[in-house]
Amino acid sequence: MHNDIIAYKYNDKIIDTQTAEELGIENAEPVFFDNSPEALEIIRHSAAHLMAQAIKELYPDAKFYVGPTIENGFYYDLKTKETITDKDLKNIEKKMKALAKKKIPIEKYYISKQEAREKFKDDELKQAVLDMIDEDKVSIYKQGDFEDLCRGPHVPNTKYLQNVKLQKVAGAYLGGDSQNEMLTRIYGTAFATKEALQEYLKMLEEAKKRDHRKLGTELELWMFDEEIGAGMPIWLPKGALLRGNLEKLLYSAHIRRNYLPVRGPELLRSHMWKISGHYYNYKENMYFTEIENDDPNKPAEEYGIKPMNCLAHVKIFGHKVRSYKELPLRFFEFGTVHRHEKSGVLHGLLRVREFTQDDAHIFCRPDQIEDEVIKVLEFVDSIMQRFGFTYEMEISTRPEKSIGSDEIWEKATEALKGALNRLNREYGIDEGGGAFYGPKIDIKITDAIGRKWQCGTIQVDFNLPERFDITYINENNEKARPVMIHRAIIGSFERFIAILTEHYAAEFPTFIAPIKAIFVPINEKHVNYAKEIQKELLEDDIVTEIYDSNDSLNKRIRNAEKQRVGYVVIVGDEEVENNLVAIRDRKKREQYKMTKGEFVEMIKKLCEVKL
Amino acid sequence: MHNDIIAYKYNDKIIDTQTAEELGIENAEPVFFDNSPEALEIIRHSAAHLMAQAIKELYPDAKFYVGPTIENGFYYDLKTKETITDKDLKNIEKKMKALAKKKIPIEKYYISKQEAREKFKDDELKQAVLDMIDEDKVSIYKQGDFEDLCRGPHVPNTKYLQNVKLQKVAGAYLGGDSQNEMLTRIYGTAFATKEALQEYLKMLEEAKKRDHRKLGTELELWMFDEEIGAGMPIWLPKGALLRGNLEKLLYSAHIRRNYLPVRGPELLRSHMWKISGHYYNYKENMYFTEIENDDPNKPAEEYGIKPMNCLAHVKIFGHKVRSYKELPLRFFEFGTVHRHEKSGVLHGLLRVREFTQDDAHIFCRPDQIEDEVIKVLEFVDSIMQRFGFTYEMEISTRPEKSIGSDEIWEKATEALKGALNRLNREYGIDEGGGAFYGPKIDIKITDAIGRKWQCGTIQVDFNLPERFDITYINENNEKARPVMIHRAIIGSFERFIAILTEHYAAEFPTFIAPIKAIFVPINEKHVNYAKEIQKELLEDDIVTEIYDSNDSLNKRIRNAEKQRVGYVVIVGDEEVENNLVAIRDRKKREQYKMTKGEFVEMIKKLCEVKL
Repeated sequence: MHNDIIAYKYNDKIIDTQTAEELGIENAEPVFFDNSPEALEIIRHSAAHLMAQAIKELYPDAKFYVGPTIENGFYYDLKTKETITDKDLKNIEKKMKALAKKKIPIEKYYISKQEAREKFKDDELKQAVLDMIDEDKVSIYKQGDFEDLCRGPHVPNTKYLQNVKLQKVAGAYLGGDSQNEMLTRIYGTAFATKEALQEYLKMLEEAKKRDHRKLGTELELWMFDEEIGAGMPIWLPKGALLRGNLEKLLYSAHIRRNYLPVRGPELLRSHMWKISGHYYNYKENMYFTEIENDDPNKPAEEYGIKPMNCLAHVKIFGHKVRSYKELPLRFFEFGTVHRHEKSGVLHGLLRVREFTQDDAHIFCRPDQIEDEVIKVLEFVDSIMQRFGFTYEMEISTRPEKSIGSDEIWEKATEALKGALNRLNREYGIDEGGGAFYGPKIDIKITDAIGRKWQCGTIQVDFNLPERFDITYINENNEKARPVMIHRAIIGSFERFIAILTEHYAAEFPTFIAPIKAIFVPINEKHVNYAKEIQKELLEDDIVTEIYDSNDSLNKRIRNAEKQRVGYVVIVGDEEVENNLVAIRDRKKREQYKMTKGEFVEMIKKLCEVKL
Repeated sequence: MHNDIIAYKYNDKIIDTQTAEELGIENAEPVFFDNSPEALEIIRHSAAHLMAQAIKELYPDAKFYVGPTIENGFYYDLKTKETITDKDLKNIEKKMKALAKKKIPIEKYYISKQEAREKFKDDELKQAVLDMIDEDKVSIYKQGDFEDLCRGPHVPNTKYLQNVKLQKVAGAYLGGDSQNEMLTRIYGTAFATKEALQEYLKMLEEAKKRDHRKLGTELELWMFDEEIGAGMPIWLPKGALLRGNLEKLLYSAHIRRNYLPVRGPELLRSHMWKISGHYYNYKENMYFTEIENDDPNKPAEEYGIKPMNCLAHVKIFGHKVRSYKELPLRFFEFGTVHRHEKSGVLHGLLRVREFTQDDAHIFCRPDQIEDEVIKVLEFVDSIMQRFGFTYEMEISTRPEKSIGSDEIWEKATEALKGALNRLNREYGIDEGGGAFYGPKIDIKITDAIGRKWQCGTIQVDFNLPERFDITYINENNEKARPVMIHRAIIGSFERFIAILTEHYAAEFPTFIAPIKAIFVPINEKHVNYAKEIQKELLEDDIVTEIYDSNDSLNKRIRNAEKQRVGYVVIVGDEEVENNLVAIRDRKKREQYKMTKGEFVEMIKKLCEVKL
């Protein structure tokens, strides 16, 4: 079957084999039955129909709304008199597989919209779908007794739909409008091969185990509290230690790369956001406050809580006359920002309303962009390598609506490409995907279980220097306009720590781990020995814990291991007598001994990391 | 004259010699003519009258409102047809000294309020003063032709007023009300001895030179920008480096003392501020914002921007069941807070609207307060010693309005005293000066030129644990209420850095200095050599600068020295050839040579400080 053609690619569109035949299209690029993105798209769309067919057989009164593909799968919105719950999915899936095995051909035919209205006259959901269709002719896909109104394309036979998995039942308002009735939404996925499906399901299972929200709670890294507010992270001691370790390393990493720290206020007069344009283009994502005037007869003044750190940096650049000799100037700030997100989309630490960016702004001449971008890319590389991430990059070029001359856009875009080329880096191009104020490079990292995350970004900006009229004095003693490069490498501490937690399944490498080791004294006599080592490490800011509760030794060891620390260190008579420690090493998954001194040195060495 | 009695202290009040005589008071404690606080109070009050007398002679139409003493001096509010400016002060002062030399007796007599109304019938300012007096009898002080309505007390003769200094002219609304007319306010000071006056004026001059607002601008440490907002500090690179160094050292200092970092959000639902009581007692100092509900039909919710960090810390304590074994729990956070101040009182970095506290909260059992306070006091001591501050401490005890049982107040107050006694520390007592929620210790530091600054505080709090109903499980498996100790050592980074800047006159010790050294290459050939050393130091996060502009060598050296860095390092042929550096040492005020390696090691060593 793997050499079977299930569709064609023609003029950048996927069409099904029947359509290709009907139109007599030759020389179209075949889409084979495999796990390519094009094949999966059509397989999953057809799997949605197969699910509908199965449901119709099991729940004859079922009516269907829309059944699109989504990232990694598909869903179908429907309604039945009976309530379908997660535990019914197995049965539906069984029916789907039975239908798939029957190798039912999938055929398409056309009728007029009016005929379709008539055909589905008892189905108010299909009528709602028809309401959205402008064309006079609509296509119907038929497989066995089941018919569905659909644009297609679909695979030619249900035999291609044997590797399906239904995942969950949710509710969804008809047309996404909370005024309308609630439908049942069933999510599923499909692959060409059993292996690919299983691999994906295994990844999902692993991802579930690694869910940072679960691990963050279990390991007491951070929390949220409805009384305080949604999307407002509260860092518990261990999470704060982890974050502190990361901040310290990144601060030093910036200093060593000739960035200069700066710090702007969090409240800025709305006046500033009006100059920058945020007041007009970003207001719904911002929070505002008012500050009273000393004179009660004068009105209070509105201030915006900063959603980004740029403005103070621009002011710092502009606070005195700058010479070309000072450029490039690299300002960085771990700046805490607030951005409104609907509470429905908040998601653990990944999507919050308050977060701290590893933000920097490089002020340079246009001809310095390429060199600066190379430096940033090398910076990105050393961070991502250290954490074991691979990553992809994409350049976004000039969109239709944008400011700045063609010449400067060309120059800047060429500089971004030039930097990537000089470093021999592959990259994609998102034509017209740039911000209105300049082209950019986006960095997407891939974690330990293959998921991709958007993190860093390098954006050239011609706009803010213009709006705030900042200048430098060039070689000819004339005023010239600097270019501004916005860049973030980890993006934000919140997001990156969420990703790291899932990437490492919270088994953080020692250099950022909040707790570097847990000591388990065999009995009370050995507690002081553990405390000695603990104190010695603490002198170097290295935090450890001692598990000396009344629980049994085995229980304490188990509890220590549950903490996912690198080293569980057992100390008993033998260790105390001979100045040793017995280590259960997470990485080596074995127990071994070393002297107390060797252990202290080893941990210190492991923490001596430079990013 | 130094043995002259200028007043008496009687029943905790100062009375003048004439009054003592009239009342036939014996056994009153004499106030001698010296620079004691009691003597200065009366000398300065009389100096204000002397100034009024002098002004009356120079500007016969002058009318006077009130002339109180203030910290370190006095002022008088008055009006004249002619405008008095700073350059007239010398002349007035000359006249004052002439009057003082005449040794005019100062006498008091009483008249009825009605007679006073009549006596000053052409003087609307005196009428305004009389409006404020409830008594029927008023006293008039007379020295020569000059008479003034006044409660006294005063020195018996103008001869005690020879060491006076007039300082500045300002405007002040009558009665402090901006609806009223503007009067002229003249500030001055007076001492018993010439030496004390001169010492004070020298200190003022030194303080002026050290004014952190002036130095902050000159050395580009921080700035304010009206477009961004009043009281919102913007940290320029050098200020941010300085602050970063301090933060790093203090973070480590907390970790090594078994504090745990935590971090709460900056926006908290007003609900939280209502529980804590801030919403009712502190609202006018807070800023608020609104966060929209996903459902547009539901109202937006009010959030308070945090003015203190306690609430999230309480939540962190309360997020799980706590055992007595976990106590004391010490949470720290360098928390950025916002508090409203009238723009009129904003003052450089000393008084701002946004600042970051070195805040910590210790949750403990009542019987642990003493030990914990001792630890905090030792912490305070090591910080203050390191920066060369001496300090005084004062315990504030239970005020009339307060919560908590007598027993717990007694216990807590005794614990504070016990801690200070066990450490053999002297302390003052401010009876009834505690917060309503518990007793406290305030720490006042004395800087290099003798000025005192309120910085740290240690406050016991019985209130918040109650309001948020946090508990721990005690030895008997019962719920018990922890005590909370709020403490800050430096107070805030903004305030402490302002004080450090004035304390050191911006000649910061190397371990916190933003720029550790400035290299001055004799000519271009030597720049690379300087860069090598710079790079080596930067590997250890040590930031230096190279002054290699086109300016002359001497000018570059002068400019480098103006930066107040510890080491100006000159490198020329001899240095490059022999791997040396020529150092101009700020501290030693001399030039000497050492090898490049020795220099690098010296600087690294100087930065290896633990607080």
